[in-house]
Amino acid sequence: MKAIQPTINHHFTITRRLPRPVRAQQELLFDDTNWSSKASNPATRLAKSLTHMLHNQIESIHTQKTLTQSNYSTILEDKSNTPISFPKDDISNNWEEFHGANNWDNLLDPINPSLRQELLKYGELAQATYDAFDYDPYSEYCGSCRYNRNKLFEKLGLTRHGYHVTKYIYATSQIDLPRWLEKSQVAETWSTHSNWMGFVAVSDDEESRRIGRRDIVVAWRGTVSASEWYEDFQRNLETFGHGDAKVEEGHSLGGALALLNAYEAAAIFVNLPVSVISFAAPRIGNSVFRDELHELGVKILRVVVKQDIVPWTAGMVFNNESLQNFDEITGGLQWIHPHAGVELKLDARASPYLKRGLQLLGHHMLETYLHLLDGYESSKVPFRPDATRDIALVNKECDLLINELRIPPRWYQVANKGLVQNAYGRWVKPKRDPEDIPSPTSESANCNEMQYVLGY
Amino acid sequence: MKAIQPTINHHFTITRRLPRPVRAQQELLFDDTNWSSKASNPATRLAKSLTHMLHNQIESIHTQKTLTQSNYSTILEDKSNTPISFPKDDISNNWEEFHGANNWDNLLDPINPSLRQELLKYGELAQATYDAFDYDPYSEYCGSCRYNRNKLFEKLGLTRHGYHVTKYIYATSQIDLPRWLEKSQVAETWSTHSNWMGFVAVSDDEESRRIGRRDIVVAWRGTVSASEWYEDFQRNLETFGHGDAKVEEGHSLGGALALLNAYEAAAIFVNLPVSVISFAAPRIGNSVFRDELHELGVKILRVVVKQDIVPWTAGMVFNNESLQNFDEITGGLQWIHPHAGVELKLDARASPYLKRGLQLLGHHMLETYLHLLDGYESSKVPFRPDATRDIALVNKECDLLINELRIPPRWYQVANKGLVQNAYGRWVKPKRDPEDIPSPTSESANCNEMQYVLGY
Repeated sequence: MKAIQPTINHHFTITRRLPRPVRAQQELLFDDTNWSSKASNPATRLAKSLTHMLHNQIESIHTQKTLTQSNYSTILEDKSNTPISFPKDDISNNWEEFHGANNWDNLLDPINPSLRQELLKYGELAQATYDAFDYDPYSEYCGSCRYNRNKLFEKLGLTRHGYHVTKYIYATSQIDLPRWLEKSQVAETWSTHSNWMGFVAVSDDEESRRIGRRDIVVAWRGTVSASEWYEDFQRNLETFGHGDAKVEEGHSLGGALALLNAYEAAAIFVNLPVSVISFAAPRIGNSVFRDELHELGVKILRVVVKQDIVPWTAGMVFNNESLQNFDEITGGLQWIHPHAGVELKLDARASPYLKRGLQLLGHHMLETYLHLLDGYESSKVPFRPDATRDIALVNKECDLLINELRIPPRWYQVANKGLVQNAYGRWVKPKRDPEDIPSPTSESANCNEMQYVLGY
Repeated sequence: MKAIQPTINHHFTITRRLPRPVRAQQELLFDDTNWSSKASNPATRLAKSLTHMLHNQIESIHTQKTLTQSNYSTILEDKSNTPISFPKDDISNNWEEFHGANNWDNLLDPINPSLRQELLKYGELAQATYDAFDYDPYSEYCGSCRYNRNKLFEKLGLTRHGYHVTKYIYATSQIDLPRWLEKSQVAETWSTHSNWMGFVAVSDDEESRRIGRRDIVVAWRGTVSASEWYEDFQRNLETFGHGDAKVEEGHSLGGALALLNAYEAAAIFVNLPVSVISFAAPRIGNSVFRDELHELGVKILRVVVKQDIVPWTAGMVFNNESLQNFDEITGGLQWIHPHAGVELKLDARASPYLKRGLQLLGHHMLETYLHLLDGYESSKVPFRPDATRDIALVNKECDLLINELRIPPRWYQVANKGLVQNAYGRWVKPKRDPEDIPSPTSESANCNEMQYVLGY
């Protein structure tokens, strides 16, 4: 059994391979605060935090119990009865190629069907970071995940992928980026300076058998919220394309953090190849950073939709005075550059289910990407008729499906915005179960120096 | 036991008293189509339709079984355990006053607490016409009630009022008013030319005992939908206040129909006094019509909020060329006039729970009216502290509650806009239960001549 370290997000998936299992020497948890008091400087502290996380992941692999053959066949049987597509091909012999060992040569056009399944899996795990995020400014838990990590995949119907969430990742407002933090309007809140950014998940025994290695996914959330991104975007539309523009883009924070994460993982574990799978990511980084990623052997597959303008714009421009920390580190280098990595380009016009014309928001949504990826066969043929993903998902947070499909726009919403009637018939916001309440004290310590990873 | 015929809606409640029970001579139902083929002219047909409805209501009273004393005490006990206010005072000796026998003299300022309870009851029944209406243009049942009449009050938590819905009222697009019809965007729909407009409900034995007579409520829905009304309103704001303005106002259709309904009921049953209780109604009717209502003994109580501009505007201006039918009937009389009836004026500034300033939408919502009515004691004292209605209800469809209350704005919504996951995990719009599917053929017949009631 091989041990892998991958990262995933709306933008980025890192997959890394170790020649043999690495055992953690420490019992520190990713969301444990002990390490910070011992840390000497921000960069060292960040390295320690991620090292601990990685060790912990790898350690936890060996504590999982092995699935019996009967469980295995039952799950396979269940899979055969569900018409929704998910990975099931045995890729134990070619997973390295699927994660960029040969730079995805001869795998993308036409696409290898097994690779498509894998990419959809990672995309759906990344989508979970949006679906479970509490955007409600009237919630005292605004900015957190609505479920604890043990329930996340179950609540979102993702258990079929065969992964377990092992850690939640939080970032704090000390990451000095403009407008990325979702804040509750409520006075007494779980945390006024912290947001849930994603999770670490590990493949279970069955899935590991199918994919040829133990897979560790780090999924990062991208946009703050679709509507806010869109408002920001429209407000800043005129300034795009200018190198010195001040672009307020909370949007690409996830992408930045994921790249930093990949960089760091590759730098620390020198024998651990890392791959990044990004969806709809804007341009981020400078040429020094890009070159270092390349030298470290980080493989990047960028999935982009032709009609989505975000990947063609400079996402995060680090010339803002509020970001001078970055400038000091990078020595004033231009923080915009052509995309690195291999590109998988999807065409929104290939799908007969999507509205035509300019769809700024719709063409950028991750669900749209997954829909188009599901229907993608090659750049030369139209949407494949045997695509099996649920088309209704496209309209979760936008209005992109043609009206004939009768799927309401922006339908992803909770009943009565979370209000429920109590025993007296009064409408109240229920308290979360204790296990679902995030704990700011144990979360805030790890992420507030993540920006300093560039100081390496 | 006295038999009563009342009508209620966002705008209007009609209560009528018969000296003795009247028994129906026919078995025709309100939503039966038989009568239309026999009708000679529109006015006669309408008279017949309403006559049949009234007869049917009165007939149905006598088929209800009497509640036992033990049931009665159980219900009373339940009531005492719920902190949400609803009518419970015995008003069997003064219900006539409450319905305008003395023009509400000495009952409104300060308000008689029992009368307030009654008004809240009628308001909540009227609110049901909004809460249960299917506004979803992607639903094949758009424009209908989401529940069948036997489940309506149960679904909306209104069974405590002690009424049973006996009929549903539908209107058709042949009512030649602009922009009032909610239409589904779906091709195969339950009806392309019919909308659910309200219901007829009858008090049960217990409630009838408490209120001193059998109460028949006719509740009419007012606005098409809050957001559409608001859009319309803003679009036409500049034309308000001019007598010759063409105001597209689907909004006041319910009010118009209710007034016509009251007029007709009073005209047909000469011994049946009728009362109308309106909430937030704009000015409707002309002076001839108003005088006739007065002569027929129709009592009108108009509940208005000082800050709501709708009651102070000319709601439905019948000078539109598409409404020339009305002009022909009324002989070109000016269709705008000062309000008739007695006014109960509420002040939004009295409530400490509401945002200040201009709140065009919020101050017009029926739930806001009910909140202010619940807190109203007299024009001289502020919001009473012992008001017991659920304050959260105010924000159902607007953003009027102060942020400190943490109630999300516009929170009244169904999970995932009605989509549910099927056995395969796919998101689909579920079919309604057969009992909840409206039947256009039996509904369309009765209401398409309602406009001609003016021809009397």
